[in-house]
Parts: sequence; C-alpha cells; structure tokens
Amino acid sequence: MPPVTKPIAIIAGAGPGTGAALARRFAQKYPVVLLARSSSTLDPLVHEINRSGGSALGIPANVAHADQLFSSLTQIRDHFGSEPHVAAAIFNVASKFTRNSFLENQPDFLDSLEATARGASNFARAVLPLLLRQADDTEGYPPTLIFTGATAALKGGSGLGSFAMSKFAVRALAQSLAREFGPKGVHVAHAIIDGVIASDKTKEYLSDRPDAKIDPRGIAEAYWFLHTQSRSAFTHEIDLRPYCETW
Amino acid sequence: MPPVTKPIAIIAGAGPGTGAALARRFAQKYPVVLLARSSSTLDPLVHEINRSGGSALGIPANVAHADQLFSSLTQIRDHFGSEPHVAAAIFNVASKFTRNSFLENQPDFLDSLEATARGASNFARAVLPLLLRQADDTEGYPPTLIFTGATAALKGGSGLGSFAMSKFAVRALAQSLAREFGPKGVHVAHAIIDGVIASDKTKEYLSDRPDAKIDPRGIAEAYWFLHTQSRSAFTHEIDLRPYCETW
Amino acid sequence: MPPVTKPIAIIAGAGPGTGAALARRFAQKYPVVLLARSSSTLDPLVHEINRSGGSALGIPANVAHADQLFSSLTQIRDHFGSEPHVAAAIFNVASKFTRNSFLENQPDFLDSLEATARGASNFARAVLPLLLRQADDTEGYPPTLIFTGATAALKGGSGLGSFAMSKFAVRALAQSLAREFGPKGVHVAHAIIDGVIASDKTKEYLSDRPDAKIDPRGIAEAYWFLHTQSRSAFTHEIDLRPYCETW
Amino acid sequence: MPPVTKPIAIIAGAGPGTGAALARRFAQKYPVVLLARSSSTLDPLVHEINRSGGSALGIPANVAHADQLFSSLTQIRDHFGSEPHVAAAIFNVASKFTRNSFLENQPDFLDSLEATARGASNFARAVLPLLLRQADDTEGYPPTLIFTGATAALKGGSGLGSFAMSKFAVRALAQSLAREFGPKGVHVAHAIIDGVIASDKTKEYLSDRPDAKIDPRGIAEAYWFLHTQSRSAFTHEIDLRPYCETW
Repeated sequence: MPPVTKPIAIIAGAGPGTGAALARRFAQKYPVVLLARSSSTLDPLVHEINRSGGSALGIPANVAHADQLFSSLTQIRDHFGSEPHVAAAIFNVASKFTRNSFLENQPDFLDSLEATARGASNFARAVLPLLLRQADDTEGYPPTLIFTGATAALKGGSGLGSFAMSKFAVRALAQSLAREFGPKGVHVAHAIIDGVIASDKTKEYLSDRPDAKIDPRGIAEAYWFLHTQSRSAFTHEIDLRPYCETW
Repeated sequence: MPPVTKPIAIIAGAGPGTGAALARRFAQKYPVVLLARSSSTLDPLVHEINRSGGSALGIPANVAHADQLFSSLTQIRDHFGSEPHVAAAIFNVASKFTRNSFLENQPDFLDSLEATARGASNFARAVLPLLLRQADDTEGYPPTLIFTGATAALKGGSGLGSFAMSKFAVRALAQSLAREFGPKGVHVAHAIIDGVIASDKTKEYLSDRPDAKIDPRGIAEAYWFLHTQSRSAFTHEIDLRPYCETW
Repeated sequence: MPPVTKPIAIIAGAGPGTGAALARRFAQKYPVVLLARSSSTLDPLVHEINRSGGSALGIPANVAHADQLFSSLTQIRDHFGSEPHVAAAIFNVASKFTRNSFLENQPDFLDSLEATARGASNFARAVLPLLLRQADDTEGYPPTLIFTGATAALKGGSGLGSFAMSKFAVRALAQSLAREFGPKGVHVAHAIIDGVIASDKTKEYLSDRPDAKIDPRGIAEAYWFLHTQSRSAFTHEIDLRPYCETW
Repeated sequence: MPPVTKPIAIIAGAGPGTGAALARRFAQKYPVVLLARSSSTLDPLVHEINRSGGSALGIPANVAHADQLFSSLTQIRDHFGSEPHVAAAIFNVASKFTRNSFLENQPDFLDSLEATARGASNFARAVLPLLLRQADDTEGYPPTLIFTGATAALKGGSGLGSFAMSKFAVRALAQSLAREFGPKGVHVAHAIIDGVIASDKTKEYLSDRPDAKIDPRGIAEAYWFLHTQSRSAFTHEIDLRPYCETW
C-alpha cells in the first residue's frame, strides 16, 4: 500500500501583509510552500511558521518566469515526494499599482498586465494538475485555487488603465478556470479586495480607525472559508471591504 | 446592574430546506426566533432545536404583513426582554417562482414582487434597530443582516419577469442598506443561490449526483461565515452553486 | 384589400423634459400617443406637435392603474382603427426619487416600486400585442419597446432603497421581456440615464456648463437610434451620461 | 489664416467584415485611414472607397508593434498634414479566438492577450493626442475612440481563458480612458458584439436565417451613432446581438 500523501498548500505572493496572513492560516492545517520574489521577505515568515509548529518551505521565485516557477515545482517534489497533492493554491501576487495620466511617457504601461497575467496563468498551469489529483480525495476539503483581485477588476478608473487591465485579465482567467475545472472538482474562486490593507506601509493612513483598513487576517479567514466549502455549494466570487468603505 | 442581554438570531422564512438549516446553524450559538407562514412548518423544527440543546421560538407570521411582523416583535420582547439585541437577522423568504409567457393572463404577476419587497423591507425595518443596538457590543460578532437571493437577482429570463423583478428589488434593497448601515457597524449581505437546492421536493432531480444540488447546510455555513467576519473585512455579496452547475 | 395601417408610437410618461423630447422625435415619423398623468402637461405638447406638422393624441392616464391604461387603449382604437400597429412604445414614467434614512418613518417606502413596477408591466402587457403585430412588417423598423432606467438600476445607494428597488425591478422586466420577445422580432431595450437631465427644474444647477447636464434631445436621439436598429444587431442596454460625469 | 484641417477617421483592424463596414460608413463623412496587417486585405477596400467617391489611405501595419504604428502616423502626417485632426478612431483588431482545455500545451496562451492589449494601448496612445486636438472643434461631432469587444469581455468561459483575458483587458482600458478623457471632450466607448458576424467565413452557418447573424453594417451604424452623440449624452457601452441570440 502506497504511503498516504499529505496534501500541501502553495501560496504565490507570500509577501508581508496578506501573503503572510494567508501562509499562517493555511499552515494551521497544511504544510505550506511559500513563493515570493525575494528570500528576505520569505525567510522570517518561514522561520516563524516552522518555529510555531507549522511546516513551511520558502522558495524565492518570480512566478511570471515560467522557468523559475517550474524549478520551484522541482523543489516541491524533492521535498514532498514525486506526486504532491495540493489542497489549496493561492495566487496573491500584487499587480503594480500606478495612477498616471495615460499620455505620460509610460514605457512600462503593460508590464503590470504581462507580469500578472503571465504569473497567474503560469501558476494555474503548474498547480492545476496537482489540485486535480486531490479532487478524488473524498476525505479532505475540495482542492481550491484562489486568485486575489481588487475593485479594479470590476471597474477601470482614470489613470488606472495599467492596473485595471491586469486585474480584469486575472478575473477573466479565474472565471474561465472555474467553469472548466469546477465540474472536475476543483474550486476556483476570485476575491475582490476593496480597500486599503492594514500593513506597515499603510499604518499612518486612517491610524485612528484601525478597522477602516482591511485586516489581512480577515482576508485569510475568507480564503480559508472558501477552501472549506463543500462542492455542493462553491462560491466563485467574494468581495471584502471595511465596514466604512464607500463603494 | 442590568442583566446582560444575550443576543438572538431571527430567521424569516424558516421553512424546510434552507430555512431549517439556517435555524440549526445559528441555534448553535444564539437563541433563534423562527418566522414562517404556517406553524405546521415551524413546530417540528422548533421542537427539534429545543430538544437538542438549542433554544428556538417559532412565530407563525407572514412578514409581508406589517401587522403580523410587528406583533411578532411584541412576542419577541415578551420572551427576550424589552430591548432584545439581535446578532443576526436573515431574510430567507422564498419568492414564488413561475415561468410563464408574459402575455398569458397573469393577474398575480406582481404578487411575488410585492410580497417579497414588502416582506424584505418590513423585516429590515423591524430588525435594524435591534441590530444597531448590538453594533456597540465589541465582544460579539458584528450584527449581520443577510438576504437570500438567486441568479435571477442578476439576470432576467424569458418568462421569469415576475420572479426576477422580486429578486432584483431585494438586491437593490440589500445594496442600499449595506451602504447606509455598514458604516454604522451592521453587516448587510446578499447571497446569490445559483442552483437547485437539495430538499424533499427535489430529491428525484439528479438523484444519482447528490452534490449536484446545493446542500442547505452549505448555505448555512456560508451565512454563518458572513456573520463571523470582522468589520474590517465584510463581504457584501457571495454566490453559491454546485461545482458542476453551468453558469 | 384592407387599408394599410400606419404604425404609431406610444410614449408613457410624456411629461416635460425627456418625455417631450421623445414625443417630438418620434413624431417626425409616426403619429404619437402621449400618456401622462395630467392634461396640463400634455396639452401644450400635443398642440405643439400638431401645429408643426406632426400628429399627436394626448391621453391623461396613470399607467399604474390598469383601468386607466386599458381605457387609453380604447381611445387609441377609436382614433387609429381597431387593430393599431405600434412601431415604438416607450416607458418613460419617472420613479419618485427620494433619499431618506431607511429608518425614518416612510409609510410610502414601497410606493415608488409599486407604481413603477405596475406601470411598467401594465404598459408592456398593453403594447406588446400591438408591437408583435408590427413585427411582421418587413418594411418598417423592428417594433421597439424601450424602458427608461437610471444608474440606480445598477447600484443601490445609501438612502436610495426605494428608488433603487423600482429601477432594479424595471431592469429585470426589460431583460426578461427582451429574452422572450426578441426572438419574436420585438426589440426590447433599457436605457441607463446617468446624470442630471437639463430641464426648467434643473436650470440653476451647473448653469455655467450647459452640456454637463443631459440634453433630453440626446436621449431622444439614442432611443430613435435604438428603434432604427435592424434585428440583426439589436442593442439591449445603453448608458447615457454627460462627458464630465463621474462614474 | 491657416488652412482648416479636415478631420479624418482611423480604423485599426480594417479587415473584411466589420472593419470594411466601418470603413465604408465613416468614409461617407471623413477621409479614412485603414490599418490592417496585410495589404491584400486593404487594397480592394481602399480601391472601392476611393472609386466610389470617398477617400481612403491603406497602411499595412500590425498595431501591436509600436514601431509599425508610429511609422503609420508618419505616413498619415505626410498625407494629411503635420497636425491631423482625428474625428474618430476605432480599434477593431480581432483577438484570436481559441477554445482549448487550459492544461493542453498552449505555449501561445498569452499571445492573444499581449497582442490585443499592446495593440489597443499603442493605438490609444497614438490617436488620443489627435482626438484631443479635435475636441476643441465645436462644429463637428465630439471626437470618438471606440473599442470593439465581445461577450467574452463580460464573462469568461471554459476553455476561453486566452480570449476572455484579452477582451476583459481591452474593456478595462476603455473604461479607464473614458473616465480620463471624457472630461476632456473625447468620447471613449466600448461595444459588446454578441453573436456570430455575417461574413464569407460564416455564410454556411445559419444560412437559412440571415439576420440570425450580425450584419456588419449594423455594427457600423451603431459606431456611427456613437460618434454623432453630443457630449451631453455619451454612451460608454453598447451591446449588439441578433434578435434571436440567446444570452
């Protein structure tokens, strides 16, 4: 009898803030693989999780580069066995937010779209076979692929074309994958994060009203909830915003 | 020192199926008040909850009739004290589903809209003051008002005008209340239920693929999750559908 | 050989502003029947159109009252023959706009919804048989039923529940009818009017920037364009807003 | 006194079908510049327009290549003077439509997105300064920039990720530009083309029901109508579908 493979969770974009909160939440149940561009971001988080009883593997990688992503997969196989099962995969890579007049010289106008779209599709292509493997496991939660989105996934804005194009594109991918892989038992979801996320960078902003910013732990709880949904009642899209946000 | 008021949950439309699942879920934490048109529906559910360690009060009432709804409030006050706190209120009253050619004689074409819209606005008007009272309680979950919707809240359909009008109208109300009462600490949410709900009535349908229908417990878990969200990350709208549903 | 029936246009909500602009535009091609609550509104417009070479019949009626609407139909038959063909029918009845805190005493909260929903469905029920008659006329433009909507048909707002519910409901009806009657050759469309309409009432507002308000003639041209679309390329929904409107 | 500059129209994606219909329609009023990848496509159309009293300049160019697009601009300046005014610019470049299982080997998965997004943003960047120049001309119609979209701009689909991502991204760009350049007097619009377009390629399909396919002239009339809207009532988004299309 082959050894039971313990499923893992993979989080791309495991930076401080949302990424770290997601890592901590999913590490309560699964070994987590954390992908981020720089190891300086990853290392403290990996240590923290490993020290507090979880299991984390940090792999510095830019998922928009297929070769880096696929070499990550090799490391995952080296670590977790040749046929890892993935219970949850989260694409949380930030798109570069800029607000510029469209006619300013912006040679990098499409960079955000390309990096995000390429990152999201590379990531989906890498993890879906591993999620499908988990779909037959009737014990666990249905395997889940979640994309982090933003209000700009629903609505363009003056000066926001670059950012909105990348967020719209990821939403298109998430919808398309949900319709293809839902019937195969993989839960594909998209989260609209609407508001400023509380973090070290934003601590000055609305500092007198702490819950006017989104607590990353609230995002993590929502993603965890999505992951636990039975396949008889999957949510595809969820919005998250502070109680006082105007929308 | 006044007695601490234990908050309650109120569910309108506590029929079999989704209503009963919601009642059971919220009764795990709160005394529940269950409203439904007929006591024959309510009685077994109330007994079941009371027998299994919960606390349920069933009140037969049609919430589209303001007098019945407000007399329910009197009963709630008699039972729970003059200033009940409401932690969660759910409007789960079904709209009558019909599919008829628009030009058929349908003297009751607007009945569904009127009953649903009146029911939803009566209910919101009755419970919001009691939810606001709970908003100051920093211990508990933010008070939550949830409306059950359907795919027809997003999209009309041939022959579905009557049903779609009622579902669109409830969604308009939910959005308007979320924008008004969110900043006051009340979480107002709307759920798009997209698919056939598993129940005694639908047991023949897709009987070979049980999770192709929505398990009412999945709906109840989603509503419960909405209720537990911190006010730094409220969800306003969530969709729920079986993994294999075409959409 | 029976006399060729010249098709007519019917406009409900032929008040000053948009209604009058619609009446003038459609009167360039068709005899127009104008419905409005008060004859003081109708009379000058009817006179103007008749004097300038058009043909207008004004009928004071509240289309939310079925008996008044159906007695209008009798007058239309008396005037245009027993089997009038309708080329275009426009539901332009205004919903009462209010912005009130939801918990204020608003005994009339649902009045707008009921009047609008009842008016729209009564009107559709009265004109659709006459539009279907015209669908076989391969000479003319496809018969057209247009509903005037607003931004509040897409999005609720704080204090706007009453208005938004009525606008959402009309949009639900328009979509449902489009899906049922499009395949039968009737073009059903919905217009999102987003902005302040230029009129006597609004002339003080933004008086220095005249085209910051919607010129009712712009609405009329859009509706006329919708009417002229061939059935190979129908538009169901169109938005109209001033160039400088924030949205 | 400087010579009055006659404004021109520029159409990118002037292939057979929609592109040709747009070219013919706009050539009724303006000299038209037609961009398409191959001159074999352009030549017959340019000849036809020039022979029938219009004025057309064909420039073979792939607008996704900035250098080709900007060399087209040089040719336009050589032809129309150093400061051409643009009355209308249309981005009608087709995105490659494919329907493939996401996990098939698709090394070109993002090609459609990149070509379309790059083409659309290059084109917008090239024409917006020329459209802005026209915005001060109070005689003519407001300068107009229109993007051709599809149903897949609103909704992803199983196997359609590549196509949907490109269509979503263009819609994001169109919305962002509308919000930035509308207040500057440029009308930016997006058209949802929903259905099969009648063309030589599709003539076998539904051959017994000619108007079940979209007549490209219907699209051209809609774009022309958008162009003629006064700036007091701009439409941003319009859908176009055959009367019998299911949607």
